[in-house]
Amino acid sequence: MSIDTLKIRKVGIDTYHENVAYLNRECSIYRAEGFQALSKILVSVNGCKLLAVLNVVDDSFIVQPGELGLSQQAFKYLQVEEGALVTVNHAEPPKSMDAVRRKINGERLSQEDFNEISNDIAETRYSKMEMAAFLVATGQNNLDRDELLFLTRAMLDSGERMDWHEPLVADKHCIGGIPGNRTSMLVVPIVAAHGMLIPKTSSRAITSPAGTADTMEILADVNLNPDQLLEIVRQERGCLAWGGTARLAPVDDMLISVERPLGIDSQGQLVASILSKKLAAGSTHLIIDIPVGPTAKVRHMRQALALRKLFEFVGDHLNIHLEVMITDGRQPIGMGIGPVLEARDVMKVLNNEPDAPADLRQKSLQLAGRIIEFDPDVRGGRGYAIARDILESGRACAKMNNIIKAQGEKAIDMRAGELCHLVTAKQDGVVTHIDNFQAAKIARLAGAPMDKKAGVDLLKKLGDKVTKGEPLYRIHAEFPADFEFAKNLAKQNSGYSIGDDEQVLKPLIAF
Amino acid sequence: MSIDTLKIRKVGIDTYHENVAYLNRECSIYRAEGFQALSKILVSVNGCKLLAVLNVVDDSFIVQPGELGLSQQAFKYLQVEEGALVTVNHAEPPKSMDAVRRKINGERLSQEDFNEISNDIAETRYSKMEMAAFLVATGQNNLDRDELLFLTRAMLDSGERMDWHEPLVADKHCIGGIPGNRTSMLVVPIVAAHGMLIPKTSSRAITSPAGTADTMEILADVNLNPDQLLEIVRQERGCLAWGGTARLAPVDDMLISVERPLGIDSQGQLVASILSKKLAAGSTHLIIDIPVGPTAKVRHMRQALALRKLFEFVGDHLNIHLEVMITDGRQPIGMGIGPVLEARDVMKVLNNEPDAPADLRQKSLQLAGRIIEFDPDVRGGRGYAIARDILESGRACAKMNNIIKAQGEKAIDMRAGELCHLVTAKQDGVVTHIDNFQAAKIARLAGAPMDKKAGVDLLKKLGDKVTKGEPLYRIHAEFPADFEFAKNLAKQNSGYSIGDDEQVLKPLIAF
Repeated sequence: MSIDTLKIRKVGIDTYHENVAYLNRECSIYRAEGFQALSKILVSVNGCKLLAVLNVVDDSFIVQPGELGLSQQAFKYLQVEEGALVTVNHAEPPKSMDAVRRKINGERLSQEDFNEISNDIAETRYSKMEMAAFLVATGQNNLDRDELLFLTRAMLDSGERMDWHEPLVADKHCIGGIPGNRTSMLVVPIVAAHGMLIPKTSSRAITSPAGTADTMEILADVNLNPDQLLEIVRQERGCLAWGGTARLAPVDDMLISVERPLGIDSQGQLVASILSKKLAAGSTHLIIDIPVGPTAKVRHMRQALALRKLFEFVGDHLNIHLEVMITDGRQPIGMGIGPVLEARDVMKVLNNEPDAPADLRQKSLQLAGRIIEFDPDVRGGRGYAIARDILESGRACAKMNNIIKAQGEKAIDMRAGELCHLVTAKQDGVVTHIDNFQAAKIARLAGAPMDKKAGVDLLKKLGDKVTKGEPLYRIHAEFPADFEFAKNLAKQNSGYSIGDDEQVLKPLIAF
Repeated sequence: MSIDTLKIRKVGIDTYHENVAYLNRECSIYRAEGFQALSKILVSVNGCKLLAVLNVVDDSFIVQPGELGLSQQAFKYLQVEEGALVTVNHAEPPKSMDAVRRKINGERLSQEDFNEISNDIAETRYSKMEMAAFLVATGQNNLDRDELLFLTRAMLDSGERMDWHEPLVADKHCIGGIPGNRTSMLVVPIVAAHGMLIPKTSSRAITSPAGTADTMEILADVNLNPDQLLEIVRQERGCLAWGGTARLAPVDDMLISVERPLGIDSQGQLVASILSKKLAAGSTHLIIDIPVGPTAKVRHMRQALALRKLFEFVGDHLNIHLEVMITDGRQPIGMGIGPVLEARDVMKVLNNEPDAPADLRQKSLQLAGRIIEFDPDVRGGRGYAIARDILESGRACAKMNNIIKAQGEKAIDMRAGELCHLVTAKQDGVVTHIDNFQAAKIARLAGAPMDKKAGVDLLKKLGDKVTKGEPLYRIHAEFPADFEFAKNLAKQNSGYSIGDDEQVLKPLIAF
């Protein structure tokens, strides 16, 4: 309610997704308005508005009375010069929090409710705790499938949407949780070599030891601007880029920035997140990979089936051709876990080397085959054979090399970290279980994905015979501290179980 | 995992309940650890640990590479000198978030779960968004009554607990929502004059136009330290102090700091909050006032009864003598809304003035009478008459004057704000409805509780006859801007409805 003005000052503090404003405690406006540290204020300048969290400053070097300091992101957002005059007010809570409260009370929300929530989040009107409230209220089974469709549509509409001006834009997505599962780096060259458009963007690892973007970065530049990306895709029919720079479904990114640290992860939000991102990226045909296993994200077949139905329901209503593949998630895919080690596995498959990991090859061919069958000219059931032919003929490898050159080739150094430790079997027998979580955790402690050469290199997989003292896997690290942490964790729990033949974990699905 | 050390530096920024650490972007530890702005870090010095949110600084005036800046609260908490050496690590998420996730998944939590959550919150291991997740997961009907008991006990155990070394320590609490409801300022002197111990601490207004602490502050100092409080209560048997300084059930305060801005307010959390605070304050006998009315917090009798049962169940298991009074919440109590106007009403009742508000007097006598009946020497049903006798004889007024003197008498200025506007009836008839929310909102816009003299002075109550143009209430303000806002809101919606005799809102309960 004040009409007093303050001079804007840029404060050299980076507060990431959160806008912070700094006001000197001696400032007359601070006193008159009864602001409190951490309260949210509305900053207005030339008709542009910004919501910011208030920090109160007692050091005039940072801001003086009469000034309003803004953190770097907030300053940049307002697009004004230092010294510009602004007014500040108490911020009203976002109107759509009424709908969140109705959801907390067990009500069903409408498309309009979700649109308003999504708009308010996109315009940074939600604090982290308001987003947390929304996520918990809509988590678990609190959304029915129509509400999930409304949410996905609202998230999709929150940002830009790419249009490739082609009738068929293919993509694939794995819901995650399986170390070493780098199928995209094989599927993309195979499918692109077939001539289909597959402009794949991927994330970096956040909780896993390597994302596709981290692994591709061993071979090529992945940080491409939109123009580069368009040009590469036009020329090669495919790419393997980092998706972080695009403004696609921004609400998804904002929700994930709360979901991740909270460690909450509902099926509904998974579906909304994946489909809003893929639709925004312009995909028309999509394969979803759901690995099932006792240490996978999805642990039971009934859960996988329920998730499949949700994907299908929302996908059909949003007009994307979508197929779900439920796959074997009992153990890591391939041998390496960590960017360099996984890149090595991928290149072995592409080069048709005899010791290439058979499971990575097989799964990639299945996925690529299903995508190739989206091609109206391919007879049902012929996709796998076409994919295999593309791989075995060397055309996939050639395509990958072209994509790498187009994105910007890197000086390849495939050597894993020099600090190396062998974890060995404590008894004779066969490998009956491999814990995906534990394997990922050891690789992360060893330094992956930050240290590209760090990770775990598996020497035995499910069903393999071992004798006491025989190596199960190698830990690679670059830094002694990380190396010790990873070794200690492996000592506590190697992630491997050894037993009899009949104790070997059976697949939860038939192939 | 780093063993590098940084020098502590105090940064003159007040971040209230949230600890913030500032690290220069050029600092080697920042780069090596892969920290990100807003990630949570663990600061360790001499065995003392602190969790803080990280802000990344590009201005060496604030912190230099090699330094770790700490916001004022964080610096104070660590109790070390500037320049002390600290190490920083990535903070692990609090272990008890596992239990919160189980609750989100619909599981029932144990006493141990709630103890761990409460401990982690008390030790500031929860971020605001983690607290929001906990509140939403345990909100609405998501806690059964046993879980509610566990939560209350855990919150109670999170802080200190007072012991008055007397068998009967009385208290009262209203769940709120009714403007002008200043019964504590009458109940305390009456009950203390009867000789019972009633050490009442109250909050300041947060969303209402006046709290008991704000109103009492017109007459006396309310900001007492624990020693003063003990001495006053020993001498006068009662007090009317601000409760904000005590370390009682601190988890309650921390949860409220998230609940309030989110505007979420479940029955379970209400019960846990009130009972943990009262038990921590050493109360043995407690009256809970639940006003019911269409614009009260509790709108239906069935809701009031359900809430009563919850209070009784938890209270009985935690060994407090607890009685719930369901009261008339159809309209504001008394005439004044705002600190000075409410203090005036209270003093009129204490002085037995003929124009004292009858409803405030009557309700206070009922509450005081019920408390007096906790006295084993008082015959059932005699409390009201004893309370009335204490009030009418002037003993309550004398006791209040003693309490005021003991707490520190103020130069009393009972004049309301000089800017004054009359809101008048638009037609002939009787007052059929008065909206509690609207009356409170107009008083707040006029400046209450920050401006003590601002508020609303009611001239008509439910059932009163009015003629067109006759004043319904006065708006008082001190500042022209506030005055205009309040007048505009009253013009949009006065909060009063005028109609026929038979349209007058009936009480939802019988008295």
